[in-house]
Amino acid sequence: MEKNLTYKILEGHLVSGELKKGEEIGIKIDQTLTQDSTGTMVYLQLEAMNIKEINTDLSVAYIDHNTLQTGFENADDHEFIKSSAAKYGIVFSKPGNGICHQLHLENFGKPGGTLIGSDSHTPTNGGLGMISIGAGGLDVAVAMATGKYWLKMPEVLNVELTGKLNTWVSAKDIILYILDELSVKGGVGKVIEYSGEGLKYLSVTDRATITNMGAELGATTSIFPSDEETYKYLKSQNREDDFVELKADDNAEYDDVLEINLEDIVPLVAKPHSPDNVDTIENIKGLKVDQVAIGSCTNSSYTDLMKVANILKGEKVHPDVSLSISPGSSKILNMLAENGALADMISAGARVLECACGPCIGMGQAPKNNAISLRTFNRNFYGRSGTKSAHVYLVSPEVAAISAIRGSVEDPRKLGNIMDIDVPEIFKENDNLFVYPPNDRNGLEVKMGPNIKPFPINGQLKEGVDGKVVLNVGDDITTDHIMPSNASLLPYRSNIPYLSKYAFSTIDEDFWKRCEKNQGGFIIGGDNYGQGSSREHAALVPLYLGIKAIIVKSFARIHKANLINAGIIPLEFVDEENYKNIDIGDDLEITNLINELKVDGEVYIVNKTKDIKVKTKFTGSSRDVEILREGGYLNWVKKNFGGIKND
Amino acid sequence: MEKNLTYKILEGHLVSGELKKGEEIGIKIDQTLTQDSTGTMVYLQLEAMNIKEINTDLSVAYIDHNTLQTGFENADDHEFIKSSAAKYGIVFSKPGNGICHQLHLENFGKPGGTLIGSDSHTPTNGGLGMISIGAGGLDVAVAMATGKYWLKMPEVLNVELTGKLNTWVSAKDIILYILDELSVKGGVGKVIEYSGEGLKYLSVTDRATITNMGAELGATTSIFPSDEETYKYLKSQNREDDFVELKADDNAEYDDVLEINLEDIVPLVAKPHSPDNVDTIENIKGLKVDQVAIGSCTNSSYTDLMKVANILKGEKVHPDVSLSISPGSSKILNMLAENGALADMISAGARVLECACGPCIGMGQAPKNNAISLRTFNRNFYGRSGTKSAHVYLVSPEVAAISAIRGSVEDPRKLGNIMDIDVPEIFKENDNLFVYPPNDRNGLEVKMGPNIKPFPINGQLKEGVDGKVVLNVGDDITTDHIMPSNASLLPYRSNIPYLSKYAFSTIDEDFWKRCEKNQGGFIIGGDNYGQGSSREHAALVPLYLGIKAIIVKSFARIHKANLINAGIIPLEFVDEENYKNIDIGDDLEITNLINELKVDGEVYIVNKTKDIKVKTKFTGSSRDVEILREGGYLNWVKKNFGGIKND
Repeated sequence: MEKNLTYKILEGHLVSGELKKGEEIGIKIDQTLTQDSTGTMVYLQLEAMNIKEINTDLSVAYIDHNTLQTGFENADDHEFIKSSAAKYGIVFSKPGNGICHQLHLENFGKPGGTLIGSDSHTPTNGGLGMISIGAGGLDVAVAMATGKYWLKMPEVLNVELTGKLNTWVSAKDIILYILDELSVKGGVGKVIEYSGEGLKYLSVTDRATITNMGAELGATTSIFPSDEETYKYLKSQNREDDFVELKADDNAEYDDVLEINLEDIVPLVAKPHSPDNVDTIENIKGLKVDQVAIGSCTNSSYTDLMKVANILKGEKVHPDVSLSISPGSSKILNMLAENGALADMISAGARVLECACGPCIGMGQAPKNNAISLRTFNRNFYGRSGTKSAHVYLVSPEVAAISAIRGSVEDPRKLGNIMDIDVPEIFKENDNLFVYPPNDRNGLEVKMGPNIKPFPINGQLKEGVDGKVVLNVGDDITTDHIMPSNASLLPYRSNIPYLSKYAFSTIDEDFWKRCEKNQGGFIIGGDNYGQGSSREHAALVPLYLGIKAIIVKSFARIHKANLINAGIIPLEFVDEENYKNIDIGDDLEITNLINELKVDGEVYIVNKTKDIKVKTKFTGSSRDVEILREGGYLNWVKKNFGGIKND
Repeated sequence: MEKNLTYKILEGHLVSGELKKGEEIGIKIDQTLTQDSTGTMVYLQLEAMNIKEINTDLSVAYIDHNTLQTGFENADDHEFIKSSAAKYGIVFSKPGNGICHQLHLENFGKPGGTLIGSDSHTPTNGGLGMISIGAGGLDVAVAMATGKYWLKMPEVLNVELTGKLNTWVSAKDIILYILDELSVKGGVGKVIEYSGEGLKYLSVTDRATITNMGAELGATTSIFPSDEETYKYLKSQNREDDFVELKADDNAEYDDVLEINLEDIVPLVAKPHSPDNVDTIENIKGLKVDQVAIGSCTNSSYTDLMKVANILKGEKVHPDVSLSISPGSSKILNMLAENGALADMISAGARVLECACGPCIGMGQAPKNNAISLRTFNRNFYGRSGTKSAHVYLVSPEVAAISAIRGSVEDPRKLGNIMDIDVPEIFKENDNLFVYPPNDRNGLEVKMGPNIKPFPINGQLKEGVDGKVVLNVGDDITTDHIMPSNASLLPYRSNIPYLSKYAFSTIDEDFWKRCEKNQGGFIIGGDNYGQGSSREHAALVPLYLGIKAIIVKSFARIHKANLINAGIIPLEFVDEENYKNIDIGDDLEITNLINELKVDGEVYIVNKTKDIKVKTKFTGSSRDVEILREGGYLNWVKKNFGGIKND
């Protein structure tokens, strides 16, 4: 059989199962990454396992989400993660160093390797030809402890790129084009593997923009071959030794193919409030803009920011616009500071923010009420900016920069000239913000501040569960809905009891009270429930509130895994029409759970209020079933790998 | 009579009263400044007066306090201030432009002029030979409307500087030395006027560091002569036309003199939790450091930051230290970006924050619990950093930078070499972040977001007042105690009802509840009550909570004026021993208020609980008495200048 690239890499890492679509496989994990907002929970979990050191080639703990530090909680979290990293042999990236995905691409990602990270945009490193998967925190903790990760073998969708991008059209427009084609659900259960002649015009950082936003397709991951461009990039980072050439066999088999001629793509925008609400820039031209925010793990490569600097040079940001630039890595910022580009940005009136996720995760720069905000980021979910009434548009850096000067959306093709960005052959070497673990780690202790609270642990599965429906929601509920992430809540990522009062608060402020009153219950949802960020808090908080099962039309992949890890039962309607037959306040019961909950099992829900029986299905692996029976992943690991320290 | 400089400038601006110590004078105000955290209230007050445009030569509205924007409130405030500025003919400084005092020094301050600003560090521009006074927001609003400001003629204390600073000793050490000599109360009721041969070694920005922290002495303002250094500075800012030579007459009269030989000064530090808790760096050498924060309106001149860059060049920030740098102005940042200094800072591992007040006002970078934080700022009040258990040490930029590298406090004199900073003769011109008001302002409206609430207005003075003592506090209570200012509260500076729940919360979380229960009452305090920031919220919030009078051993100047402006009666014990005779919960009554409240009047408090009578005094001008009788300044302005729009 002619093998695709995904198959080849997974084959080399397979530790259990068969590489058949839909089958559960176990793979060896070479590298892990965590960031601070999911990381505190990961290191609490790691601390709960009785291990001496990590079992991966490399694990890195980044601080990039909560760097505003508006209270001691953040700095305490940073210290907790730093001390955990030292204890277990993990590389620590200090606040200010930059965004995990950008830094990992520059410093650690390897073609042909495997990476899992507790951040949904972990697939960014797919741009380097690495299998890079976003996962729940507990999956990452277990991977650090065991070197292993289990997942359902995805389909492989080949996106074949031909032609060459037109002037002023860039990688961001490619992924927006694909989002328009496939929608935010189009990648669910799939690896998106890129190929074709068009690749030769795309640098590794262009590719990383595309694989990064592959997360918005719901894809398991996205991957590019490792070729001359990959070599060039690794060499620029003084890492040519990490290069291996990798590509799919000629005529490799794929589950599906999407052909795209790059010449067909024009400058695009994702309009509020979804990354797949795509339109052309031409169609929104002239829209008055209040805020422009440039940066994020999607668009803060050297090339991206140099384009921005070139556009801003000698110009002035419009008086009615606030333009912020948050570079993705201190290395890039350092280069821009040395070559004068940063001075050009500042001179034009840009606000230069720290190298971090920043406004992309609502960590500062919340726009004014009803603002139009143009952002080079990856998500424009409702409320994510920190301002519910704001309208966020996702665009390329070029469109963002020009519109900041004009004060309204501008089609960059009007500018005529082509900007040639000379990417240096060798990037500046600077790892002053990385802290490497000491060789002698004996006696090192983790340091825990008072805001770091124990995480909830579920009990073993019971034969019957009952309770009220405490929430009924529609399609495309994101983890931002379930557990909002904003500047005032991020400091509490290590404090589940505190966070629980904000669950679903953007759509229903009384949700937590209803849970408290009814001692938890059931949640009913539509399609693509749990899309977006990988945060396991979106499962741990419902667990804390007593949610027993969530019944929906379909789940987003990472969130479903997080629910299973938390011991919350994820069920899907066999007949989607039944979604309409369950209302908030209905009394539900499942009577035969231990028997019915099995691989592809049918689980019957009795709606006692309406006196009807609703058929649902559980789609998960035998391991998922085992985990749910044990009441969650930590219990399962405890049973199978032994030695939970706090037993 | 030989005149001192203070007398000369005031004489030229006098509109009422006589220049006699302790007499009330009215002066013409040439310029005003506001920042955003006090400014929203100022522009609400300006809006309540029926004026068409401002009545000063120049007024500037800066945004520098709340630039994190963790919610829509900040951005809405910025828009409100921007629209007010346009309507009334005020220059607007966009967020990201820098800190008001630094920007005002660079762009607008004039030797011989008068400036009042709704920020306690307004005296910074005294470094240019300008009478620059921090005042309550309402004073600034009235000055914008009328061009006038009233104050009690201060004493003039001459600080005569001789000799020359030793290597590695800088302006910050001079003001710390004076704080050690005079204490945080030493400047109350005084203008501190500098003279002497030592001046010729101090640049305008050195002088501005000293006048800036004169606020920590409690001084009305501090002022330096306008000389060759002043000319050099103004020329560097392309403003040589603003230069006039100004100095005291030979043998001018002063109320007091302090002689300082600059050669006697060594590197100093202010230890927790007061700027006058001064010690030598030598004495705390070796103290392990967790955080270093460089910047603020005290220490972010070109020279300061170039020194820091030179020290950091080629070095690495210690792995256990977080070093942040928040430049004071985008112009300076721009120059550092152009000359490579910024690259040196980034390369060493510094976190470069936006040009704003930032961590100095607890707006981000809250240290971890129990952290040792070295800061080049002006205040180290308890809790101000955002972390109650943190220990904040105030130091010079040199000490900060070296200690960041070493990981512990280091005496810079160990370094041996002298750093010569070449200050450019001409600074970069860049006003892209200033928005100048349009010439045609007809029909312009202010834009108010939903978080902007009306401010409380008091009623006319009554013959008798009674109530319970709802709080009893000791000496040196700061406005940070009265109305805490931190990252989570700053967004609510235009929302008094919300803020009221946090009044005195760092020392007594139940204060607001006690006020609510008792419908307000009395506050008892010690010496120097209300020192620190000029925020009038420290008066408006007690007004909202029903506080009728505050009885203390002594008041800080600006806060006392703010209390009078709010219509809260400020009284001082005639016999300080009586402080001990009033406890929390005591029932107090003043029966003959209208008669007793007069210039230097004696006001008798009946402590009904203890059955004693306590004599207090009111020290204020006849205008102050009028204001209190009207129930506050806005009522008084309404009566005397007419035309309150919302009447």
